[in-house]
Amino acid sequence: MSAPIRYYYDLMSQPSRALFIIFRLSNMPFEDCVVALRNGEHLTEDFKKEINRFQRVPCIHDNGYKLAESVAILRYLSAKGKIPEHLYPKYFVDQSRVDEFLEWQHMSLRLTCAMYFRTVWLEPLLTGRTPSEAKIETFRMQMERNLDVVEEVWLEGKDFLTGSSLTVADIFAACEIEQTRMADYDVRIKYPKIRAWLKRVRQSCNPYYDVAHEFVYKISGTGPQAKL
Amino acid sequence: MSAPIRYYYDLMSQPSRALFIIFRLSNMPFEDCVVALRNGEHLTEDFKKEINRFQRVPCIHDNGYKLAESVAILRYLSAKGKIPEHLYPKYFVDQSRVDEFLEWQHMSLRLTCAMYFRTVWLEPLLTGRTPSEAKIETFRMQMERNLDVVEEVWLEGKDFLTGSSLTVADIFAACEIEQTRMADYDVRIKYPKIRAWLKRVRQSCNPYYDVAHEFVYKISGTGPQAKL
Repeated sequence: MSAPIRYYYDLMSQPSRALFIIFRLSNMPFEDCVVALRNGEHLTEDFKKEINRFQRVPCIHDNGYKLAESVAILRYLSAKGKIPEHLYPKYFVDQSRVDEFLEWQHMSLRLTCAMYFRTVWLEPLLTGRTPSEAKIETFRMQMERNLDVVEEVWLEGKDFLTGSSLTVADIFAACEIEQTRMADYDVRIKYPKIRAWLKRVRQSCNPYYDVAHEFVYKISGTGPQAKL
Repeated sequence: MSAPIRYYYDLMSQPSRALFIIFRLSNMPFEDCVVALRNGEHLTEDFKKEINRFQRVPCIHDNGYKLAESVAILRYLSAKGKIPEHLYPKYFVDQSRVDEFLEWQHMSLRLTCAMYFRTVWLEPLLTGRTPSEAKIETFRMQMERNLDVVEEVWLEGKDFLTGSSLTVADIFAACEIEQTRMADYDVRIKYPKIRAWLKRVRQSCNPYYDVAHEFVYKISGTGPQAKL
């Protein structure tokens, strides 16, 4: 038997949470390698040399093979038979629909939710400066343009983003959207389909969804029940 | 025999050029469906309904199956046996290294090169306003942080981004970097490894590389020879 993969992650990172939930749902054993981003543990020369040349999380080591980028990691482990087919389809047509979401999200949902979170929550924390209302408004609008697409296009006539059941696409998306809670944004107010879908995603992924989001719930001062 | 896929693209779009070059190198026949972004042809309700619900290019129709997102399209066509293995490996470990680049580029190289191009070339053209030096400088620095990673990490000790020969990763990357020529940025000045690598990529992809970049060369006022 080969050693379990080493999984380097921080649950404060959205794609780290997504993979954490996916690995748990897949019953895939892994060696827990928590990296505290808040302490800059990823910024050392040692980390760059030994763990991940891009100095980010998530990443894995599989018997010495180092791989970064959450979607690449997911595909690699799927090819190794570690991810069940219902979460990431093997049939190439079904897989392409999930891939379409995974590729779409980077520069749309992920970028704009992350920028909103950073502007409203992270930067004020790091710099002590409050962003202007106009700046918050700009980032909110950019984010909502993409939430509109999730509500109106991805969730049109479907219970989940790519069909009638949960896939990794839903897990990646939910983890991005949950991040905005910490910036006190409640996506559920304007988006009824997203509200209902998030509830389904959480139910399909629990108990791991709540474990992964424990810190998010704590920071946002709302338990999962308060909003879902 | 089934009909060739319909390929919707505009050579002004970086991922459109990448797929165009990949399809030509793969000897894959396709029906040429040019979409003039400059005329807003992608913004009509018809386009949204009939061609691509996300109103972007590139996208394909394969006997009625509609798929968007360049990387998802590439994988779908690879699974159908349309893309040769040397361009996109079939062995999952080799594939994961190419995937790592394809996933990395979105929010790093692609985002920052595109933002620089947009700020320095596209927005002044559309609005008639010149960006401030400080703004250009900010976007240039963000872009160069990622060009540094290409120079120092991806190209470290290798002729191509993921190994000793050309893959789709190189083609996607080169198309992003070439876009900045139009904003009068010459990547070759500061980055000797990128300079030499771009030359190799162009040589490996010609005559299709030059065909795809004809408009880029024209706008930037430099033939391919002038800089490469």
